[in-house]
Amino acid sequence: MKSKLAVVLLSGGLDSATVLYLAKARGYKCFCLIFDYGQKHRREIQSAKDIASLAKCAYRVLKISLPWKGSSLLDKCEEIPRPAVKLGVQTVKKDIPSTYVPGRNIIFLSFALSYAEAIKAGAVFIGANALDYSGYPDCRPAFLRAFSKVAACGTKAGSSRSGIKICAPLVNKNKSQIIKLGASLKVPFASTWSCYRGGKSPCGRCESCFYRAKGFKEARLVDPALAERRAG
Amino acid sequence: MKSKLAVVLLSGGLDSATVLYLAKARGYKCFCLIFDYGQKHRREIQSAKDIASLAKCAYRVLKISLPWKGSSLLDKCEEIPRPAVKLGVQTVKKDIPSTYVPGRNIIFLSFALSYAEAIKAGAVFIGANALDYSGYPDCRPAFLRAFSKVAACGTKAGSSRSGIKICAPLVNKNKSQIIKLGASLKVPFASTWSCYRGGKSPCGRCESCFYRAKGFKEARLVDPALAERRAG
Repeated sequence: MKSKLAVVLLSGGLDSATVLYLAKARGYKCFCLIFDYGQKHRREIQSAKDIASLAKCAYRVLKISLPWKGSSLLDKCEEIPRPAVKLGVQTVKKDIPSTYVPGRNIIFLSFALSYAEAIKAGAVFIGANALDYSGYPDCRPAFLRAFSKVAACGTKAGSSRSGIKICAPLVNKNKSQIIKLGASLKVPFASTWSCYRGGKSPCGRCESCFYRAKGFKEARLVDPALAERRAG
Repeated sequence: MKSKLAVVLLSGGLDSATVLYLAKARGYKCFCLIFDYGQKHRREIQSAKDIASLAKCAYRVLKISLPWKGSSLLDKCEEIPRPAVKLGVQTVKKDIPSTYVPGRNIIFLSFALSYAEAIKAGAVFIGANALDYSGYPDCRPAFLRAFSKVAACGTKAGSSRSGIKICAPLVNKNKSQIIKLGASLKVPFASTWSCYRGGKSPCGRCESCFYRAKGFKEARLVDPALAERRAG
C-alpha cells in the first residue's frame, strides 16, 4: 500500500500553504520542511512555522548555506528588482529576474526526498507553479518531470513499486486559481508572507507582491494579510 | 565558448580524487566542494582538504544537516556492516546496504549545480561509479542521466546552449581501472581515505575498505596509504 505520509516544502508563501492544506485534504499526514537559506525575507520562515502549527503539522527548519550567492534574494549588495510586468498589462515573455536563486528548488527537493525516504513517506509536495510566476526554470513542468525521474532512479525507495511521488498540484494553475483553491481549503492567508524584501510589511513593489496582488484582484477576494495590516 | 571552470565533488576517497586530477588534466580550473554531513568517517573531510591543497585547487567545506538520518553511516546507534561479498569471491547481486544515505548524491549534486551556476562553470564532476560499488542507486548511470536532465531543465544556465554538464567519467570503470588511471595521473592515494568507520586507521573490514583492497590487488599495486601506515 502506498504510504500516506508526505513531506511538504513550506516557504511561508501562499502557494506552499495551499499545497499543505491540499495534501492534508487528500488524507496525507504531513511533515513540513522549511529552509533558512540566507534569504533577505527571512520573515517568511516565521510565517511557515505559523502555518505548519495552524495546520497541526510537524515541521523542521533546516539551515543551509549558499555562500556563492548568485541572487539578489541573497546578496545584500544587490537590490531586489521591480517586476518587469505591470498589473493590468498583459504578461510578456521576459528574462529570468535577478531574484532567481541558482538551484534552489533542486536543493529543496533533494532534502525533501532524503527526508521522505528516511521516514518512508510516499510523496513530496511542492508549491511550484509556472503561470503567474517569475520564469524561474526550477518551477516549470519539464523540470518537475525530470526531478521525478531522479526520485525514481536515484533512491532506494524508487526501486520498489511504490516509490516517492513528486507532487506539484499547482503547476498549471494561475495565481487567482490558487487563491480560490486555498480559500476553499481555509488556508490561513493572513499568516502567509510573499514579499521578497525583508521589511516589516509587504513592499507592494517587488515581483512577488505584484503576483499576489494580481491573484487576489482576479479572484475578486481581499488579501487578509493586507486587510489585517491596514486595520492594525 | 564552453566555460573551463568546473565544480568537483570531493569526498576524500580515491574515486573523487582521481576525478579531480582527471578534470585538471582536461584543462579545467577546479573548485572543490566538500561536505560535512554528519558522516561517522569525518576523517575523510581532512583528506579531501589535503587532496584539494595538493592539487592546488580552491575548496569549500559545506556543513549540511540530515537530522532524519536513515543510514548506518550517520546513526551512532547503528553498526557499520561487513561487506556482503568477499575478496576473491564473485560479486553477487545483493541488497543495498545500511550505509546508503538517502538522497546523498542528489543533495551533493544539487549544491554543486548551484555553485557551478553562480560562478558560471561549465561542468560538475562526480566520482560515482557502478561496478565495484555498494549498489547505491545514486551512483548508477540511469540516475546520472536523470540528473543531467534536471541540470538542463532546472537552471538558468541550462536554457543557454552551453549549460552545465554533469560529468561522471568513472561511472563504467571498476576499482582497479580507477586506481590505474589515478596512478597514471599521480593522484596522491596516500592522502585518500576510504574507510567507513571513524577510526585512526582503516578497519579493513567495511565494504569501502573491501573494494579498495580488491582494486589495489587487481591493479597489482600497493596501496600507499596502507604501506605508509605500516611503515609508521
